Amino acid sequence: MQFTSEVTEHGVSERAFELEVAGERVPGIIWTPEGAVGPRPVVLMGHGGTQHKRVDTLLARARAYARHQRWAVVAIDAPGHGDRTTPEAAAAARANIQARIAGRTQGFDPERMREMAQRTLRAVPEWRATLDAVRTLPEVGEGPVGYWGVSMGTSIGVPYLASESRVQCAVLGLNGLRSGMDEFAAQAASITIPLLFVFQRHDELVNVEAGLALFDAFGAKEKTMHINPGGHVGIPAHEREEFERFFLRHLGPGGR
Amino acid sequence: MQFTSEVTEHGVSERAFELEVAGERVPGIIWTPEGAVGPRPVVLMGHGGTQHKRVDTLLARARAYARHQRWAVVAIDAPGHGDRTTPEAAAAARANIQARIAGRTQGFDPERMREMAQRTLRAVPEWRATLDAVRTLPEVGEGPVGYWGVSMGTSIGVPYLASESRVQCAVLGLNGLRSGMDEFAAQAASITIPLLFVFQRHDELVNVEAGLALFDAFGAKEKTMHINPGGHVGIPAHEREEFERFFLRHLGPGGR
Repeated sequence: MQFTSEVTEHGVSERAFELEVAGERVPGIIWTPEGAVGPRPVVLMGHGGTQHKRVDTLLARARAYARHQRWAVVAIDAPGHGDRTTPEAAAAARANIQARIAGRTQGFDPERMREMAQRTLRAVPEWRATLDAVRTLPEVGEGPVGYWGVSMGTSIGVPYLASESRVQCAVLGLNGLRSGMDEFAAQAASITIPLLFVFQRHDELVNVEAGLALFDAFGAKEKTMHINPGGHVGIPAHEREEFERFFLRHLGPGGR
Repeated sequence: MQFTSEVTEHGVSERAFELEVAGERVPGIIWTPEGAVGPRPVVLMGHGGTQHKRVDTLLARARAYARHQRWAVVAIDAPGHGDRTTPEAAAAARANIQARIAGRTQGFDPERMREMAQRTLRAVPEWRATLDAVRTLPEVGEGPVGYWGVSMGTSIGVPYLASESRVQCAVLGLNGLRSGMDEFAAQAASITIPLLFVFQRHDELVNVEAGLALFDAFGAKEKTMHINPGGHVGIPAHEREEFERFFLRHLGPGGR
């Protein structure tokens, strides 16, 4: 884990880092309270498709968690995202997803499905390596761990959580289970940590039946599905407060 | 509004009262912070079928709201419930609902539907009269108003809220919309205040499709459905915290 920059403002230290995982350079950011000493909860934040590790909404949550709860927060660029793609390819991916939303296109063609599965396969060891690395920092240590990731963050989060015993709770959402997704269903069934699953009633990319099917598939005894009106990118602001309180309930507040 | 008893303990004053509405004696309770002065938010609490105005879960919430948020809380016995029935009739009603839960009996026969509609019809003006009465108290006044009621509390709450402009937000749930319930659907559509709609995934009395249909029917732009695993009487404890925060977001904290 190599730090490449550090900035501290408004009580939050933001450090960029790089990891090498299976020959790939994985860029990430860790946010911690200024002057943090000793172990604390850490929240892993998986960004959505076409987004990156420092997208506005994620950055705002990361700063709030470090500032108000004294947690550490970590984000990495998913394969093919952020610093791991070109501006042109990122713009093309955004145009593609916008067209899918406008066209209410649910599901993906077989080629795209294979591409997504490959990306997911690469992202899982990257999250494992990231957690390994941040836990060597004294200001993170062996504190409790949460995962946050909706949409693509759930496509990656489900196989990651299925293979990871160090995460205590997770916020997932904007994703579903359709027939033929047997491996995803099996992974979901093996997740038994408390879950908050957020869903949009008018999601252009996933219908509520698929969302309920994924919610049902999770092996967790404590799981709650929050359904709000609106489309895929319209999670209402008040849910941010719910995410934070969910993590607080399961991870506890940060220390010094 | 005639007070019949008053007890203050642990910082909460509990006063029993009676109202006369359309020739009926309606018994109620109001909880307020000890020594409360001036207007404050008030939460109207509608108990479930076979329950009463001082059932354990309601009493615990009422005390917590008065103590922690300095809100006023009001509950009344619904028609045919609490002090408005006999112990024998109440026991028979409880046995009936337990048999329905055990038998997973959804919907009701026409006679029972008529009986429920009549009860609802009587409960609506009783809630209006109750709000009129408590607003004459200086320690309630014209503060913001919330409504809480699941199961029968929603069967009564939907027509009540449809006819009441003084309520700012409501927690509803454990109820659904089936074909033929056109009046209930129209009442739901006319409710535009923020709603938290809580639902149990394995509710023995209402399936999730009926629950989603009612959620969809509400006219509110800001509405969230919380789905948890478990049966009709199994709302998990953490939802109590969500109810309180929902009311806090929309009603604000109580004053002196």
